Amino acid sequence: MDTSVFPGQAEYAFELVGVLAFALSGAMVAVRRDFDVVGIAVLSGLTALGGGVIRDVLIGATPPYVFGHLDLLAVPVVATVVAVFFHPLLEAGGRAILWFDAAGLAVFCVNGTLIAEAAGLDAMAAALLGITTAVGGGLLRDVVAREVPLLVRKDSEIYAIPAAVGAVAVGLLAAEDIYEPWMGIAAVLLVFAIRMAALTWGWNAPGAYHRRPAPSA
Amino acid sequence: MDTSVFPGQAEYAFELVGVLAFALSGAMVAVRRDFDVVGIAVLSGLTALGGGVIRDVLIGATPPYVFGHLDLLAVPVVATVVAVFFHPLLEAGGRAILWFDAAGLAVFCVNGTLIAEAAGLDAMAAALLGITTAVGGGLLRDVVAREVPLLVRKDSEIYAIPAAVGAVAVGLLAAEDIYEPWMGIAAVLLVFAIRMAALTWGWNAPGAYHRRPAPSA
Amino acid sequence: MDTSVFPGQAEYAFELVGVLAFALSGAMVAVRRDFDVVGIAVLSGLTALGGGVIRDVLIGATPPYVFGHLDLLAVPVVATVVAVFFHPLLEAGGRAILWFDAAGLAVFCVNGTLIAEAAGLDAMAAALLGITTAVGGGLLRDVVAREVPLLVRKDSEIYAIPAAVGAVAVGLLAAEDIYEPWMGIAAVLLVFAIRMAALTWGWNAPGAYHRRPAPSA
Repeated sequence: MDTSVFPGQAEYAFELVGVLAFALSGAMVAVRRDFDVVGIAVLSGLTALGGGVIRDVLIGATPPYVFGHLDLLAVPVVATVVAVFFHPLLEAGGRAILWFDAAGLAVFCVNGTLIAEAAGLDAMAAALLGITTAVGGGLLRDVVAREVPLLVRKDSEIYAIPAAVGAVAVGLLAAEDIYEPWMGIAAVLLVFAIRMAALTWGWNAPGAYHRRPAPSA
Repeated sequence: MDTSVFPGQAEYAFELVGVLAFALSGAMVAVRRDFDVVGIAVLSGLTALGGGVIRDVLIGATPPYVFGHLDLLAVPVVATVVAVFFHPLLEAGGRAILWFDAAGLAVFCVNGTLIAEAAGLDAMAAALLGITTAVGGGLLRDVVAREVPLLVRKDSEIYAIPAAVGAVAVGLLAAEDIYEPWMGIAAVLLVFAIRMAALTWGWNAPGAYHRRPAPSA
Repeated sequence: MDTSVFPGQAEYAFELVGVLAFALSGAMVAVRRDFDVVGIAVLSGLTALGGGVIRDVLIGATPPYVFGHLDLLAVPVVATVVAVFFHPLLEAGGRAILWFDAAGLAVFCVNGTLIAEAAGLDAMAAALLGITTAVGGGLLRDVVAREVPLLVRKDSEIYAIPAAVGAVAVGLLAAEDIYEPWMGIAAVLLVFAIRMAALTWGWNAPGAYHRRPAPSA
């Protein structure tokens, strides 16, 4: 089963854009935390490649895909160099990076789901791994940087929820064998649109019901 | 080799109770930290299923058991809904959750050890993975929630130690081929009893010898 | 392919020294943080064995090597006992532990690379896993202890960089099939020398260019 969402070269282009956006986001967190170049590279690499590595380990596809792709392994190196020398530009262009990040989120939650389903997982388990592919790297980034993960914060625009919408839709379609490539593309566009709308209009997910704000910790 | 401790349906009931207790404990930590619903679900899922997933990845049983069991995957979803709407009740009933959690601890350290031993590991390595099954999820919970892990705190009642007693006993018995089902049940009861005694009488593990209390950090 | 760097017994001696140094460093962090004995053992074990376990999981060599070697599994137990009773001696001898740690760093980055290359990875991917073998345990230690990882701090002497030099050199030599055992030994000595020089003369890695120090966080 072909787990690509887009035709060959387009898929690769989207992957590269997504990995680069993730890598830059990891590198920028490290710069803001005043880490050294090793820390910038580590955070960049974990963010960019961590989600896919976790997925591949969980489905038993070892060594993970990225370890066979020097071009993808090189992306965090590029992001590190860019962040070290041009971080003020990246800060200024942070909004643009969020767009690319949204593209990465959209592509990875859909093709992560397809990859997990091709490995024999059921619809919902595959969707869970698709979501993990998309959000796992960012979670590792925040844990190593000792920040409250963006993934869990009430004041961050929804991120896992659009990924879940796309992953579950594609997971169910593929399980029913009615999945066709255009549906994957539609799912990617839907995830991207929801995430961009969330960024534009500041959509947050609620917390526990009637919970008064906890004291800052 | 059958890695169940209890006869069929009973094993499943204990597993479900344990996973639910773990899931609720993760969800409650997230509520207290004022995470959004995504954070509640993430913390609930990591706590409930993380230990078993780590064990399965380490023994090469991929995809991990839980990814093939939608009923177990659904438990953190249920725990999330319960925590979002009824967290005051859960706070009030925190003591009861600790009892269920103790049941989960007891069942998972024993059947985690049996699963690892069935996968070919030696007694002590299997016991180590049994302990990991029981305590790994809670460690992930605390790392993501940025709390000092309960597992390592002097002021928390002993948790890994009862698990270690049960896991090592079962690991050695199984390695000597004298393990019989009633021994597993006895080990589960022993772990449960030690943990409940620790909770009742406030048994803590000591730290380094003659170490003056460190400055709070 | 033989992935040993040194002849049989010498390799084992170096491994044991390295694992013990890592185990003591983990145990000492736990003592300083005032963890209980369980926390000391957990941190010691994660530091000593975590890097190799991550490498083995990533190359699909499960269960990881160390789970078949009771002697290595016992090292963190020994380190825990030593730290609990003799931590003032260890504090006093912290400099000596850094030397042993440097030996461990040097051996593990080189033989981790050889192991990954023997598992079929390309030069740079193998080098990445060699570095992971050497620094992964320390990263886990700092994440669980809730400290800014030494790996990423500007004020810590370079650690991953000497490991990267050795790992990349050995990775490229092995990929070109011109690797011979003396080269591995030379790489180990080089890594050790760079790390010791960094400790002696306080070599730090720079952060982002022209970045003013961030507010302490």
